[in-house]
Amino acid sequence: MHLLVIGGSDGGISAALRARELDPDVEVTVVLADAYPNFSICGIPYYVAGDVTDWRDLAHRNRVDIESLGIELLTDTTVRNLDTGAHRVSGTGPGGTEVVIRYDRLVVATGAVPTRPPIGGLDRLGSADGVHLLHTMADAHAVMDTLGRRDVSSAVVVGAGYIGVEMAEALTTRGITVSQWEVLPEVLPTLDPELGRLVAAELGAHGVRVETATRVTGIGRAGRMDARGGALAVRGTRTVSGEDVEERADLVLVVTGVVPDVALAAGAGIAVTAGGAIAVDRSMATSAPDVFAAGDCVVTHHVLVGETYLPLGTTAHKQGRVAGENALGGDRRFAGSLGTQVVKVFDVVAARTGLRDHEATAAGFRPRTTASAADDHKAYYPGARPVHVRTTGDEVTGRLLGVQMVGAIPTAVAKRIDTAATAIFCGLRVDQLGDLDLSYTPPLGSPWDVLQAAAHSWATPTGGAPRSP
Amino acid sequence: MHLLVIGGSDGGISAALRARELDPDVEVTVVLADAYPNFSICGIPYYVAGDVTDWRDLAHRNRVDIESLGIELLTDTTVRNLDTGAHRVSGTGPGGTEVVIRYDRLVVATGAVPTRPPIGGLDRLGSADGVHLLHTMADAHAVMDTLGRRDVSSAVVVGAGYIGVEMAEALTTRGITVSQWEVLPEVLPTLDPELGRLVAAELGAHGVRVETATRVTGIGRAGRMDARGGALAVRGTRTVSGEDVEERADLVLVVTGVVPDVALAAGAGIAVTAGGAIAVDRSMATSAPDVFAAGDCVVTHHVLVGETYLPLGTTAHKQGRVAGENALGGDRRFAGSLGTQVVKVFDVVAARTGLRDHEATAAGFRPRTTASAADDHKAYYPGARPVHVRTTGDEVTGRLLGVQMVGAIPTAVAKRIDTAATAIFCGLRVDQLGDLDLSYTPPLGSPWDVLQAAAHSWATPTGGAPRSP
Repeated sequence: MHLLVIGGSDGGISAALRARELDPDVEVTVVLADAYPNFSICGIPYYVAGDVTDWRDLAHRNRVDIESLGIELLTDTTVRNLDTGAHRVSGTGPGGTEVVIRYDRLVVATGAVPTRPPIGGLDRLGSADGVHLLHTMADAHAVMDTLGRRDVSSAVVVGAGYIGVEMAEALTTRGITVSQWEVLPEVLPTLDPELGRLVAAELGAHGVRVETATRVTGIGRAGRMDARGGALAVRGTRTVSGEDVEERADLVLVVTGVVPDVALAAGAGIAVTAGGAIAVDRSMATSAPDVFAAGDCVVTHHVLVGETYLPLGTTAHKQGRVAGENALGGDRRFAGSLGTQVVKVFDVVAARTGLRDHEATAAGFRPRTTASAADDHKAYYPGARPVHVRTTGDEVTGRLLGVQMVGAIPTAVAKRIDTAATAIFCGLRVDQLGDLDLSYTPPLGSPWDVLQAAAHSWATPTGGAPRSP
Repeated sequence: MHLLVIGGSDGGISAALRARELDPDVEVTVVLADAYPNFSICGIPYYVAGDVTDWRDLAHRNRVDIESLGIELLTDTTVRNLDTGAHRVSGTGPGGTEVVIRYDRLVVATGAVPTRPPIGGLDRLGSADGVHLLHTMADAHAVMDTLGRRDVSSAVVVGAGYIGVEMAEALTTRGITVSQWEVLPEVLPTLDPELGRLVAAELGAHGVRVETATRVTGIGRAGRMDARGGALAVRGTRTVSGEDVEERADLVLVVTGVVPDVALAAGAGIAVTAGGAIAVDRSMATSAPDVFAAGDCVVTHHVLVGETYLPLGTTAHKQGRVAGENALGGDRRFAGSLGTQVVKVFDVVAARTGLRDHEATAAGFRPRTTASAADDHKAYYPGARPVHVRTTGDEVTGRLLGVQMVGAIPTAVAKRIDTAATAIFCGLRVDQLGDLDLSYTPPLGSPWDVLQAAAHSWATPTGGAPRSP
């Protein structure tokens, strides 16, 4: 039995590891296009910031670790063709050698590629000019090369999603003056703007100039005479006023999201959804026999909305594990995503799980969302800080649909959101959050936890009698 | 409609607040024996430590707050008789005045009283001698009085439960040399000793001399000639070797647990369980008509074991809320406790939820418990620290029964245990922890969270193929 995995990141490696864990006799080969198996792409901002001094430390496991588990790694090998009938792939190995590999079972984990927004000049400029996309370790090396080679004192980060705000922090930490441009009205647009504003304030407090509601229209080289303000000129238009803006920078980072990389699978006739991701069922099986897929290249089964696309490392790990088990004849199901996400921005943490109000409406619920804030621990104990919460529940069933939170690092927002994620996963009603036996000690909590206070406030929106769903 | 509440701590005040929240027309009176309504007893160690400088700050709400919600407070009033037939209580108010109060509905929330272990001399010594029990604000004032009046340079804390270790920290923080005596083999005996040892090490690292497996047999005044080592002599016997030990101290604190205060209820013929707590159903109704009870004086309905006794502030809040609602004709049920507890000891946090192995066995499960440890966040990001976990699941059904954790403060153990508590509350199997969509960002977590790594390790105890329950 030969299990072939295409892709050496979270989804692919998880599949390989799970297969070897379940059956030490199965032959497992992982083919990857670059030289960085099992790297933590989420760690790139911390390498750029200097928190991580050696990029090799970003590997979840290094090559030796993986090979010692009996997994064969073919790096720098690009698979170009997949013949699902013949159970065979072919492509190009190191030095341009042709590679042909047969398989019994295949896991496609080709991941995603960064989007290239329609920005004038973006196609003509690249790393050599200090204009970067950022998705792979090679991209990270290119950014570090620019930072080392040039005297970078200013940067524009295009996009204020998770990686965008992390990179704004990273570059600021290096002493670079950063502007963060975002086409939508608030940073971290996956959060409600009321919470995004708190993150924008944190960025601003650390010197990041936040330029929201501004569409980048062009990037160009600044004239030699004007290069004092930076060798690059970023031009944009304010979406509300129509006003034009221009800013000089030494470095421009474009981080505006990703799209699934399905070229190989689609070329082999494997079904792809309207959204452009590989179609898989919850066993991670594709439309082709003996072919599974996992990670950023596949559709995401969401606990509350069904099929969507939500590329996240945590999800890729889980899907890969399911794919690896089922490729060996197992019967696992991917239990579903809730889109749980968290990001640290300087000293603040923002997190969400489940649905926001408009997402819940789109999914057929009748949501109501309430805002609340409560101290992370008893105010009498030093250091209490507010946690800002937005709670979304269904008016009809009372079911908890989503929670968003923002708070300072010691408020443990990342782990508080996990409690909410668990509650949503289990189908609890908002009022049942109040029933949970959560921990309490004055330096770390309150008798009614922040989440329970939020639930009480959702259930009693007017301060009067509670609704009993 | 007149709702009378006896007891002004968590259970009683929660009942009163809930009643007023639901019906602004209900007349609510809270009678309490001391002058400290709605005080956070759990905060006393932080007042003694000096983290809280004004004891009044320990009030969850002050008298004005409570009265402004339309609740009448009768402080310094001890109820001595309850006539459930006549719907009437009588007792003694301030200055010895007789008080008689009629009620339509009653909530008994008389709490608990500290146990007095059979220690020779304990009945003859008191606050004036520097020997203290610690349960109420009056007890806290007495301790502070001793600390202010005497030159206390050494203390023995008898008991290493939650309050015991918190008080060892508090006294150490004040510059006092502390010995902590515990009759059981390890500190924090509500945790498995493997984790208790980590807490003992933290105590030791901060200069607390931990004397476990030692039964205190007597406390006496030291002779005037020998008073240099402290005015009090604590004598004990090592439970294993039988060896006698003696230690001098200026202050002795006996904190060895509590028993329910049921004198009033039992005197009125209200049913009390074999364990000595007031019998209530999950609506918090007692055996007497129109009489509810909540908090440390009642039996605790536990999600996994049924009836037990687990006096905790969080539970008292929830039970009080249910009692207050049902006293007004509502139909709420107390959803049940999981005995979720957390304690900060210097820079370490220890937490548990659900059952330990032997508790699960006693409750009829067939448990297995595994130990694991994982970093709180990706090791490449600075500051990663291990979280030590013990996971208990049922071999027959695979159900998660209990989790215990110890880790440094920034590892957010208190909120991690909440995720486990939510999972147990919802009846998840251990392997389903791996399905949860928990949050991840490298500075705050891992793609497989600590709890999920623990679940994987429980499911694959030998490192081989996982058991599929």
